[in-house]
Amino acid sequence: MIEAAIVGGTGYTGVELIRLLSAHPNVNIKWLTSRSEAGKPVTSIFPSLRGFTDLVYSDLGDDTTDALSQCDVVFFATPHGVAMTQAPKLVAAGVKVIDLAADFRLQSLQAFESWYQHKHACPELLKQAVYGLPEINRDAIKKAAVIGNPGCYPTTAILGLKPLITAQNALGSALVERRIIIDAKSGVSGAGRQAKLDLNYAETTDNFKAYGLAGHRHLPEIEQGIQAILASQIAHRIRFVPHLVPMVRGMFTTIHLGLTDEGVEQDLHSLYVTAYQNEPFIDVMPKGEYPDTRSVRASNRLRIAVYQDNSRHEATVLVVQDNLVKGAAGQAVQCMNVMFGFEETLGLNHVPIVP
Amino acid sequence: MIEAAIVGGTGYTGVELIRLLSAHPNVNIKWLTSRSEAGKPVTSIFPSLRGFTDLVYSDLGDDTTDALSQCDVVFFATPHGVAMTQAPKLVAAGVKVIDLAADFRLQSLQAFESWYQHKHACPELLKQAVYGLPEINRDAIKKAAVIGNPGCYPTTAILGLKPLITAQNALGSALVERRIIIDAKSGVSGAGRQAKLDLNYAETTDNFKAYGLAGHRHLPEIEQGIQAILASQIAHRIRFVPHLVPMVRGMFTTIHLGLTDEGVEQDLHSLYVTAYQNEPFIDVMPKGEYPDTRSVRASNRLRIAVYQDNSRHEATVLVVQDNLVKGAAGQAVQCMNVMFGFEETLGLNHVPIVP
Amino acid sequence: MIEAAIVGGTGYTGVELIRLLSAHPNVNIKWLTSRSEAGKPVTSIFPSLRGFTDLVYSDLGDDTTDALSQCDVVFFATPHGVAMTQAPKLVAAGVKVIDLAADFRLQSLQAFESWYQHKHACPELLKQAVYGLPEINRDAIKKAAVIGNPGCYPTTAILGLKPLITAQNALGSALVERRIIIDAKSGVSGAGRQAKLDLNYAETTDNFKAYGLAGHRHLPEIEQGIQAILASQIAHRIRFVPHLVPMVRGMFTTIHLGLTDEGVEQDLHSLYVTAYQNEPFIDVMPKGEYPDTRSVRASNRLRIAVYQDNSRHEATVLVVQDNLVKGAAGQAVQCMNVMFGFEETLGLNHVPIVP
Amino acid sequence: MIEAAIVGGTGYTGVELIRLLSAHPNVNIKWLTSRSEAGKPVTSIFPSLRGFTDLVYSDLGDDTTDALSQCDVVFFATPHGVAMTQAPKLVAAGVKVIDLAADFRLQSLQAFESWYQHKHACPELLKQAVYGLPEINRDAIKKAAVIGNPGCYPTTAILGLKPLITAQNALGSALVERRIIIDAKSGVSGAGRQAKLDLNYAETTDNFKAYGLAGHRHLPEIEQGIQAILASQIAHRIRFVPHLVPMVRGMFTTIHLGLTDEGVEQDLHSLYVTAYQNEPFIDVMPKGEYPDTRSVRASNRLRIAVYQDNSRHEATVLVVQDNLVKGAAGQAVQCMNVMFGFEETLGLNHVPIVP
Repeated sequence: MIEAAIVGGTGYTGVELIRLLSAHPNVNIKWLTSRSEAGKPVTSIFPSLRGFTDLVYSDLGDDTTDALSQCDVVFFATPHGVAMTQAPKLVAAGVKVIDLAADFRLQSLQAFESWYQHKHACPELLKQAVYGLPEINRDAIKKAAVIGNPGCYPTTAILGLKPLITAQNALGSALVERRIIIDAKSGVSGAGRQAKLDLNYAETTDNFKAYGLAGHRHLPEIEQGIQAILASQIAHRIRFVPHLVPMVRGMFTTIHLGLTDEGVEQDLHSLYVTAYQNEPFIDVMPKGEYPDTRSVRASNRLRIAVYQDNSRHEATVLVVQDNLVKGAAGQAVQCMNVMFGFEETLGLNHVPIVP
Repeated sequence: MIEAAIVGGTGYTGVELIRLLSAHPNVNIKWLTSRSEAGKPVTSIFPSLRGFTDLVYSDLGDDTTDALSQCDVVFFATPHGVAMTQAPKLVAAGVKVIDLAADFRLQSLQAFESWYQHKHACPELLKQAVYGLPEINRDAIKKAAVIGNPGCYPTTAILGLKPLITAQNALGSALVERRIIIDAKSGVSGAGRQAKLDLNYAETTDNFKAYGLAGHRHLPEIEQGIQAILASQIAHRIRFVPHLVPMVRGMFTTIHLGLTDEGVEQDLHSLYVTAYQNEPFIDVMPKGEYPDTRSVRASNRLRIAVYQDNSRHEATVLVVQDNLVKGAAGQAVQCMNVMFGFEETLGLNHVPIVP
Repeated sequence: MIEAAIVGGTGYTGVELIRLLSAHPNVNIKWLTSRSEAGKPVTSIFPSLRGFTDLVYSDLGDDTTDALSQCDVVFFATPHGVAMTQAPKLVAAGVKVIDLAADFRLQSLQAFESWYQHKHACPELLKQAVYGLPEINRDAIKKAAVIGNPGCYPTTAILGLKPLITAQNALGSALVERRIIIDAKSGVSGAGRQAKLDLNYAETTDNFKAYGLAGHRHLPEIEQGIQAILASQIAHRIRFVPHLVPMVRGMFTTIHLGLTDEGVEQDLHSLYVTAYQNEPFIDVMPKGEYPDTRSVRASNRLRIAVYQDNSRHEATVLVVQDNLVKGAAGQAVQCMNVMFGFEETLGLNHVPIVP
Repeated sequence: MIEAAIVGGTGYTGVELIRLLSAHPNVNIKWLTSRSEAGKPVTSIFPSLRGFTDLVYSDLGDDTTDALSQCDVVFFATPHGVAMTQAPKLVAAGVKVIDLAADFRLQSLQAFESWYQHKHACPELLKQAVYGLPEINRDAIKKAAVIGNPGCYPTTAILGLKPLITAQNALGSALVERRIIIDAKSGVSGAGRQAKLDLNYAETTDNFKAYGLAGHRHLPEIEQGIQAILASQIAHRIRFVPHLVPMVRGMFTTIHLGLTDEGVEQDLHSLYVTAYQNEPFIDVMPKGEYPDTRSVRASNRLRIAVYQDNSRHEATVLVVQDNLVKGAAGQAVQCMNVMFGFEETLGLNHVPIVP
């Protein structure tokens, strides 16, 4: 049994962490913090948790680090910029840190400071931080002190591209052309639990739009994933366009790829099957079947399909996940399981909710 | 051609007024005011209006009354408490005032001040104000200087009850028992165009709840409608419970009535047909057919059905309307048509949008 | 470990049973039957189950009873009229039967045959069948051979009324008036997994309507619940009107009650708290808090609030549940737990999914 | 005043035609046909039309052609394959034919027969048929006897690409690379008014998926649009992937283009502004503003934005329309206006419905 803290437990990733951790057999949530809600039971904000937890929001004030240091792991479900101010002391005290925001995602200090317009508080620690995508970084995660939990879009993009990118390296020649189009679609919960006019029901429902046309912060993370993490030997030209779908949870990423002559000769489907055959949370759909977002609702699964059109030299990769689970809180718990030597699926084996 | 002003044109009733008035053959919108958006074209807030209007938001500042006095009619699509501060001068200048908020709905000063916790700024004018429900007050509206445009729920409740309440007066004995249950359901647009966490898509969609259990401001308005306006001779005991439906527009009001022995002897359906046979906007459904909210979407229609169960001495009245049209902006335009002697349906004859 | 069969596993209650039972520690699903899908893996119909089960639909044909007799319990997630044809042989073979349809809900043969327009195939067995509402019939369920799993609406109505009805019996005088209005609202999944035009997305979304005005089959079940099961000494006059809400799961039942002078003297909230203090699945909300449907989404919880207005002699009871869980499959599993002496909450302790 | 017939008036394009034509000042709907609903008033199927029309469905039986020949124009809102059986006789009788299905969209007989698996009934007439996209074919439409009303996706794709394709023709060198990715998203009403399990609310809502991965019938139509109609001098390599969005109306098409060096030198936005400056239904958004689908809801507008990223040599074109209006019925009425010499916007100037 380990002791965990959740810093910032009033958002959607926060409540999802509580849902997952309160039912996790090896974890006790010791602290749940929120300045604005301090003193209130978590059930006053989330009545869905009534009967499952007696947690009360704390404002740890000046003693934050001391209090959090009593834990084995601290999850930051806070806005960007919070985790990096507390992580160094926690790491020094031997506490594992998992940041669900972006403080430790980009390994390039310059990229971080330019995309997030924020000076990084602990560049030294950033160097040690591990990108928390177990399907790619499992060994590094085991030994990590600080995890940058991946963004939701990059999780789908990197896992959707991995078999193609790594195969091309192995073969010595590329399967796909340089230009990659990532046309992604997210449910509204991805925008967080905020009082914003744009997120008002009457503004969002029965509507569809693109956003981030001029550049979304997940783009450098995707590029890092492809170049640095997957070690692609080609300088891909990525176009990433996210869209907002009138649904609560769910992310659907359509990746459009041009196939090279080498790519046409490969059976892409079997490449995916092989790449992910031992991954408990990744499901490659049978040939000819395509995933929908609800098939992973409220679960840590990510489903992939690849369609290959040799006559047109085109491939289309479809990836779905629940943005709040595999795209956020579930992935964080998966990282925690890896870090503490637990069975990787522990506490994460929920059957998706359909309908 | 008359000149109109819309004070407070950034909410949903505001944009709906613009939609209706910009296509109205006899109206020119001279002013559209908003302090927060002054100087911006209305299309920057509502791109749906691109190509239909060049209106720019004005902040009339100290000259508000002077500027508005150039108009024939001023619509207040503002929060409660605004119209009453400007109405006296406008009326003095011969301008017709239609308030879509609650300043002139409750004829009892005491009721207003108690339910709205707001001192009334012009109690004398309140006495002259007319409740803007043309199907009940048409003659008074023709001569009115100030209209209190009805609340959305009261519109359905009062029109849903009118044939029963007035029939009982005519016959001298009641058709329905004293206790009336009004179980009402509204789409989310009724809560306005606001940045409120409660209205966030992810909080509202795929969800259903009641609100206002302890007393909703539309209750005294419904009671006034039944007692004062319909002149019921019985002191009805009204229970009004509103609910929030995950849909944009639409209001559905279920009225549960107990039938007296006299009520059982009446054919209630024909009572409704007769009562509303000349009303252009009220549609009594054929016997055995029941309305759904989408059948009036984006139109000024209100549809009613009555189900009569003599064996159980029960009647159920179902009323639907678009809360933003017949429940707000459309009704205001209907009142304007009546006040200026226009054809009552002018500019209001839109076919509902289905699907 | 017991062996279970699910007859008719292609509907929403079927897939929900599979979700619950495939994760239940004491149950193995031995058979899953469907004539139309025989031979197909369940994951071909419900990809959400990929990775959780290898079940294949069987058509047991002539050997149905023999095959099912190998099980300890058989769940019928079939249309009305199926369970009653197989139940007698299964019971004779010592197999427990839980019917999620209506064959064993109404204890009156006449009521069944009149409301369902179906001759009952085993009137003798019907006499022994137990209404599967553990919070009311726990002891009988323990010993039952056949369970009529309650309808979704009656579950909310009966549990919502129980403290009031049974209290009045204890005191000897009624707390509530004779007339009870049950205004209920259900998500669309309650209509089942069917290709029906009425259920088409574009027909149902952004829309609200009532149905069953002239009489819904759950009415006699509610009446039976109040009179026979709760043993009310008053002949209540029930008006039940169901409505369709554009949401997937969730049921919200608003019960409007008139309070007698005795009722006014009672603190109704504490009556509910006391009545349900030991019930693991029933949550009485704190005074002044009201439930929404999502707070029980995908869980077996049922939440209740009661609002008491002594000045108007009115009480309003609000009940929410997930219609597919506590309103169907979850309740069936709860009954199974009771029948087999398992912990009642075993396999049913899911945290609701919010958002 | 012209006389019109609508053949097949029970689907969504049918009811949308009725909505538009019943309010069109120059049109009288003489016939509305449906075999399955013959004899019923249209309001029994679509209560939203109550008060607007007394039309009754006819089954014209053997006299179909005679009856329809009394009209000036016949709209076919029928499945593929119906219009082509009746069009020759109608054209011979001097009646204008507008087919909203696919019988006259593809100018290549071979392409039609291969994609639709249907022998064409009147290949001679097909040669004369005009593709009904007024913004491209206005002159031909004026003189056309038979119109193939464009598919919804092709309307967005062709109009979204026109300024780029025709500019490149004019300039003599291409602005965009050969490979074009069209990632399109449609509301559910595009699938028609059908009782299909896939379209059930509980299957579609809160969900997102791709379809037609292996080839959608609108692809050859898009290719024809680019090559034949826009006369591109480049053999573009088109990848078209449609997706289903949980909303009723609305289509959002994201077109991903690679810019050539010539493309980088052009200001694409001004190219669009110029191309469409005189088009009443096409709205090019101001630079930096992007459209959402609701901004055209229930209107015949189509809005376009183009984002240009010279550093990455990428351009993204965003196109929105209401799939039932500009994507179907509205476009058909626009064609009719052109054919009969009416003002092109007559009866089509509805302000979009927001919210």
